[in-house]
Amino acid sequence: MTDSRLQRLKDAAPQLRLSTDAADLEHYGRDWTRRWTPAPLAIALPASLEEVQAIVRWANQEAVAVVPSGGRTGLSGGAVAANGELVLSLERMNRVLDFDSVDRTLTVQAGIPLEAVHNAAREHGLVYPVDFAARGSCSIGGNIATNAGGIRVIRYGNTREWIAGLTVVTGEGEVLRLNRGLIKNSSGYDLRQLMIGSEGTLGIVVEATLRLTDPPPPTNVMLLALPSFESLMQVFAAFRERLTLEAFEFFTDRALHHVLAHGAQKPFDEVHPFYVVTEFAVGFDAREAAAMAAFEFCMEQGLVSDGVISQSDAQAAQLWRLREGITESLAKYRPYKNDVSVRISAMPAFLAETQALLGREYPHFDVVWFGHIGDGNLHINVLKPDDTGDAEFVSQCEQVTKLLSQALEGHGGSISAEHGIGLVKKAYLLGTRSAEEVALMRGIKRVLDPNGLMNPGKLFDT
Amino acid sequence: MTDSRLQRLKDAAPQLRLSTDAADLEHYGRDWTRRWTPAPLAIALPASLEEVQAIVRWANQEAVAVVPSGGRTGLSGGAVAANGELVLSLERMNRVLDFDSVDRTLTVQAGIPLEAVHNAAREHGLVYPVDFAARGSCSIGGNIATNAGGIRVIRYGNTREWIAGLTVVTGEGEVLRLNRGLIKNSSGYDLRQLMIGSEGTLGIVVEATLRLTDPPPPTNVMLLALPSFESLMQVFAAFRERLTLEAFEFFTDRALHHVLAHGAQKPFDEVHPFYVVTEFAVGFDAREAAAMAAFEFCMEQGLVSDGVISQSDAQAAQLWRLREGITESLAKYRPYKNDVSVRISAMPAFLAETQALLGREYPHFDVVWFGHIGDGNLHINVLKPDDTGDAEFVSQCEQVTKLLSQALEGHGGSISAEHGIGLVKKAYLLGTRSAEEVALMRGIKRVLDPNGLMNPGKLFDT
Repeated sequence: MTDSRLQRLKDAAPQLRLSTDAADLEHYGRDWTRRWTPAPLAIALPASLEEVQAIVRWANQEAVAVVPSGGRTGLSGGAVAANGELVLSLERMNRVLDFDSVDRTLTVQAGIPLEAVHNAAREHGLVYPVDFAARGSCSIGGNIATNAGGIRVIRYGNTREWIAGLTVVTGEGEVLRLNRGLIKNSSGYDLRQLMIGSEGTLGIVVEATLRLTDPPPPTNVMLLALPSFESLMQVFAAFRERLTLEAFEFFTDRALHHVLAHGAQKPFDEVHPFYVVTEFAVGFDAREAAAMAAFEFCMEQGLVSDGVISQSDAQAAQLWRLREGITESLAKYRPYKNDVSVRISAMPAFLAETQALLGREYPHFDVVWFGHIGDGNLHINVLKPDDTGDAEFVSQCEQVTKLLSQALEGHGGSISAEHGIGLVKKAYLLGTRSAEEVALMRGIKRVLDPNGLMNPGKLFDT
Repeated sequence: MTDSRLQRLKDAAPQLRLSTDAADLEHYGRDWTRRWTPAPLAIALPASLEEVQAIVRWANQEAVAVVPSGGRTGLSGGAVAANGELVLSLERMNRVLDFDSVDRTLTVQAGIPLEAVHNAAREHGLVYPVDFAARGSCSIGGNIATNAGGIRVIRYGNTREWIAGLTVVTGEGEVLRLNRGLIKNSSGYDLRQLMIGSEGTLGIVVEATLRLTDPPPPTNVMLLALPSFESLMQVFAAFRERLTLEAFEFFTDRALHHVLAHGAQKPFDEVHPFYVVTEFAVGFDAREAAAMAAFEFCMEQGLVSDGVISQSDAQAAQLWRLREGITESLAKYRPYKNDVSVRISAMPAFLAETQALLGREYPHFDVVWFGHIGDGNLHINVLKPDDTGDAEFVSQCEQVTKLLSQALEGHGGSISAEHGIGLVKKAYLLGTRSAEEVALMRGIKRVLDPNGLMNPGKLFDT
């Protein structure tokens, strides 16, 4: 730690934990993308709001860029530090600060893992309903930075809808206490909403007040096998009309292939092109009957080829594993990930165009589809063949992402539904947001971060 | 129409309907506040996005301020034009542009009245759940400008949560198509959310894509008479725990006095200090039983003195009238309106402090309370005595608002829950938002409206 800038940081915040250990630089300098070589200046692990503020003020004095860092489970490179930045890890700021039973809010430090939030809510008989597979590792601050979605959006919306208040340190080191837990507050621009989804480029989320809600009613889980994508949209319509859906997730036979190879249990004897895992409220007879009626209607119409309904929590978990295990089962293939969205109504036309595009461009690659039909969100994972080098593989994939981005533009879609733009999708931002919008974003960044030190180069170049 | 600036506007947009008629200047120059003398330059009534854009470009060339105008039912002076501004009324842009049954969205022009939105949704078997008493006159554009709340927030949230897309003309005349109906879109700053609640100071909302939802389950309405405010909070807790609440509204004996004098039907023989109108889901036996159990529990505990439950839609409407008729019944007294919010948990302490404050400061004024307990939102209406002049009355009330604003600051509350800041609450903004936040808001306004022509002087001075 001979860098004089770091010495001055030590002087400014004597208790601050700092590391320049090579293993730490590598560990904290990257996220779940593996495309960039970590090269941060140092890792700071503040323990308080005051230490975060001191770091940001120091960064402005020294003109050092700051990369805010949560669980680094991101898939867009938003937490990558490859250019001598200071990584500001919130991992030591992981406590529950307050629970209020009347407000039904939980106030937490930004570094707390999502799963710890779930557990804290449950201890009080309530739930924080945003959920996805990285729950054990990701932090709530990172969830806020990307407006994380996940598997319950169809019922509960994105992270954005569950944030009642944020404590933020801006790019100049000012502390803002935004919205402070209020339900109704029409007093000017909602800077809280501006921070949500800003990927650390406007400042650092240090604390959050989360809305909690009642536990969902008892649910059952159903796994369906479907003959075609057209039937998928019709099954979704039939189920949405008859049931209160908590989740409606689809995946393809290729996805099932990989998750079975990774150890999951085969659900049906035959192979089908599409599968759906859906969870829906039961708990009284009419609802149970509605679920069976939806299933029978779809079978009669030839929209569903086979199905199984959970008879126990254990079986429900087993069915969920077929969907939730996909990402992990693909990890060893170093997949190139697309996370795109369109309006639900645009899904069939977009999917037809995309299938043709991928069939034409990727004849030699294994492409695995899954996603959240009820949210218009598709995950398209392209697996790297063993005989293709990393750089060549990414380069080939990026050619196709350009075409995909054009298709999305035609259908009014987004190049990032829930992963964020980060470094990975930056080149495609103009397919989703207009030049005027991006110019306004740059202008807004200059207001909150005039020296351009907050996660620079992520989202857009400044 | 001899003003050369208006002639150049005519040249730029030959089909644009423009008026300088004295009656129009007065009609379009004010909102439901009656404190400012309307003095606009002219009224423009565009019929298309292109005409709105032409107006804003002209305004930049001529340095004329623009006041966007919807139903002008606002209570904060946000739509007042008292300084030679051009009023840009959206009233001719009041059509439904599109309904999509798969996306469950309704795309409308900003000038459409809220009630017309409700009717259009219902025609398709769905609902747009934001609702309040001004529904027949207010426009969706105005609802968006103030992030309007109303009587169903406890169940459905504010306007913000129902906006899937916005078409906006910025202060420089650029057209932005924000979010375009997507459910999931993590592609940078959510400018849609920034526009919502910005009171026309960043640009003009021209079109909106609204999310719709399933109709609520069958509901009943209950009117409760309560002995004290302490019991009110406990009754709320008991009902929220046992029922799915669609609304939970309270009012005082003074409010009931005025609404009865205005023609509503007396619900109970005796007088009680507080009343609640609550609406909750029924539709199957367990829910009916839960409602009766909640009521009986509260009676046994002495939290409720009397009650009546609707036996028909007509009776439900009658009970609702006791709450919804209040504002109209007070109108002739030219009330000074406070629209404040705190966290629900802060309500008892804040209310005790406020009651003491108002009793001390307003011994001679009739003060009528009502509001949305489940949202932490109180409406405090101070009625003007006949023998007090307008200016003197406002001046006295503003003294008290200063004290109220200080009390709110102590309890972390907001000077405007749902009416907006406009002109009326501008002097108190710094009690709710920090100086740093207001400075950032000013900076953001300069990005979207560099010449400061969009509704200037509203929300804050630039």
